[in-house]
Amino acid sequence: MSGAGTDAVVVPDALRRFAAEVFARAGLSDEHAGIVADVLVWANLRGVDSHGVMRVPRYVELIAAGDLNPRPAIGVRTEAPAAVVIDADRAAGPVAMTVGMAAAVRKAKSAGVGVAFVRATTHTAALGYYTLAAAREGLAALALAGSGPNMAYHGARAAGVSTSPISIAVPGGERAPLLLDMATGVVALGKLMQARRTNQPIPSGWALDRTGKPTTDPQAAQIPLPLGGPKGSGLALLVECLTSLVVANPILAESLEGTPQGRRHTQNGLALAIDLARFGEPAAFRREVDRLVKAIKALPPDPDGGEILVPGERGDRVRAARLRDGIPIPRVIYDELRRVGEKLAVTASL
Amino acid sequence: MSGAGTDAVVVPDALRRFAAEVFARAGLSDEHAGIVADVLVWANLRGVDSHGVMRVPRYVELIAAGDLNPRPAIGVRTEAPAAVVIDADRAAGPVAMTVGMAAAVRKAKSAGVGVAFVRATTHTAALGYYTLAAAREGLAALALAGSGPNMAYHGARAAGVSTSPISIAVPGGERAPLLLDMATGVVALGKLMQARRTNQPIPSGWALDRTGKPTTDPQAAQIPLPLGGPKGSGLALLVECLTSLVVANPILAESLEGTPQGRRHTQNGLALAIDLARFGEPAAFRREVDRLVKAIKALPPDPDGGEILVPGERGDRVRAARLRDGIPIPRVIYDELRRVGEKLAVTASL
Repeated sequence: MSGAGTDAVVVPDALRRFAAEVFARAGLSDEHAGIVADVLVWANLRGVDSHGVMRVPRYVELIAAGDLNPRPAIGVRTEAPAAVVIDADRAAGPVAMTVGMAAAVRKAKSAGVGVAFVRATTHTAALGYYTLAAAREGLAALALAGSGPNMAYHGARAAGVSTSPISIAVPGGERAPLLLDMATGVVALGKLMQARRTNQPIPSGWALDRTGKPTTDPQAAQIPLPLGGPKGSGLALLVECLTSLVVANPILAESLEGTPQGRRHTQNGLALAIDLARFGEPAAFRREVDRLVKAIKALPPDPDGGEILVPGERGDRVRAARLRDGIPIPRVIYDELRRVGEKLAVTASL
Repeated sequence: MSGAGTDAVVVPDALRRFAAEVFARAGLSDEHAGIVADVLVWANLRGVDSHGVMRVPRYVELIAAGDLNPRPAIGVRTEAPAAVVIDADRAAGPVAMTVGMAAAVRKAKSAGVGVAFVRATTHTAALGYYTLAAAREGLAALALAGSGPNMAYHGARAAGVSTSPISIAVPGGERAPLLLDMATGVVALGKLMQARRTNQPIPSGWALDRTGKPTTDPQAAQIPLPLGGPKGSGLALLVECLTSLVVANPILAESLEGTPQGRRHTQNGLALAIDLARFGEPAAFRREVDRLVKAIKALPPDPDGGEILVPGERGDRVRAARLRDGIPIPRVIYDELRRVGEKLAVTASL
């Protein structure tokens, strides 16, 4: 790595090796450790640093707390022709969601459409990783995750739902796949954290403080508000139903009621895949995606807005730049990673 | 009906009979006319007047223009174990989407999850009608629709995508099903129309004028902005891919390129159903939905916001009131409906 201002800059492969060794020393199999490291570094490469290696210390804590099972017995709980319930046995989210999307793709190839309900996993990380993997195989894919309450419910002055992310990806032709990966909040938790670090006031309508009052103070902002009021919190509520309640692992009610289970970290995921080849000519689909992108990019641009981008495009560019120049890691996070590495006697250098 | 201020007030059954006779006289079979009337009046009953009988004249125009086929040969184009492509043959949207959701439910019952891609239909009307029908049968359901460009794409100063609606419904226990039915715009087109009628300035960030400039003038506002900027327009773009491109009936690119096909009215829909009984105990799922709602309603309310509501609850209440008191119809729309009725020699009174 080399220093640059307050950020450390790390070569992606070195970061992946380091993270993988941390997870292996923390008890994961080498295969699982490699998957988790790859998913986190993938997020960093695309500029989604909130879902990148800054999560490493938290994952290690989850193992220590017994919430993340480093040696899970992931198994199929229920099987239907087009769907499967996968019991993740508290696996690391990236491991369980990778298994889940692979199962959804397999089901889609035999049934046209396939869904995997991933039960009792942990932090699912950046959902775009899994939908993009399916899009690269030529399928359309969607992923959802249900998690604990960290976003205000519309009309309430407290966290009631999760910022439940939604990702959708479809293959492109000459272009990269279209990749949407969004949370249902007005603003990502990562942006609130960034405002806290830089101490910039936040716009009104972004967040509540810990007592539930609206605030523009970046130090006080704790609870993001839902995107579009009842739309964002309604979506988040239904995502909990589709991910957690379908597989009888409720998260929100347990947490809001303050039950012992509600104090544990757990998530549930859903992976859906559509085998495009079953419903039309895949090459024609890909050409139409490119044609649509071209038509969108030919729209008159907002004179104040710069270039018109399609979902995934900004991330693709950040990735190209970071593959070339390395991944910037804020010094405070870099130092924390090194401490975790030292504690676990990691030999890979960072 | 009885007059009340500027609104006419019509008994729901009378409105349904009138609309059904209009569609029958315009060429639909009695069965199809009844379905379309039921879907439109259902929207009025729930207070979604923008998707109610105000659409009747437009539907009649679509028949006259040859865009809506009153006697469609709806058929299955492709069949897979969990999915089906239904060629709607330009059927009225409510007819095609009813067929589509029924097919998705059938597939879900055999495969666990089922999807119907509904190709080449017309205005799909209120998607909540179809997802609610599945939820009443005990399934979870999702519906999407792809339509012509009527919403700004983020970063563009023109309509580039559709306000692509998304509906999700799940069954409740003691309570009614949870029913989310939202568009991907900051504001519904109906709200813009209402501001135009009442001449109230609209908030900045809601809409562009016809030349693509941001405006707060309700008379000039034409193009709603996407919910959450790139999130709303990204979702809408991916909905076009999942509904229109999967079945090779592109709408946005045809329209944006100004092709002859792009000037015709056409829509595509997607209906997805999940057979909850396959993945757990349905009664337990329903109890968990009620428990979740109870926990959400127990959150500390926004002192300025009134009651905490869950998706579908406001519509359920409006429905109860309108079943009792009748459906208010703005005089200008009431007069237009009567003119359409006279022209088609409709005998049912309004």
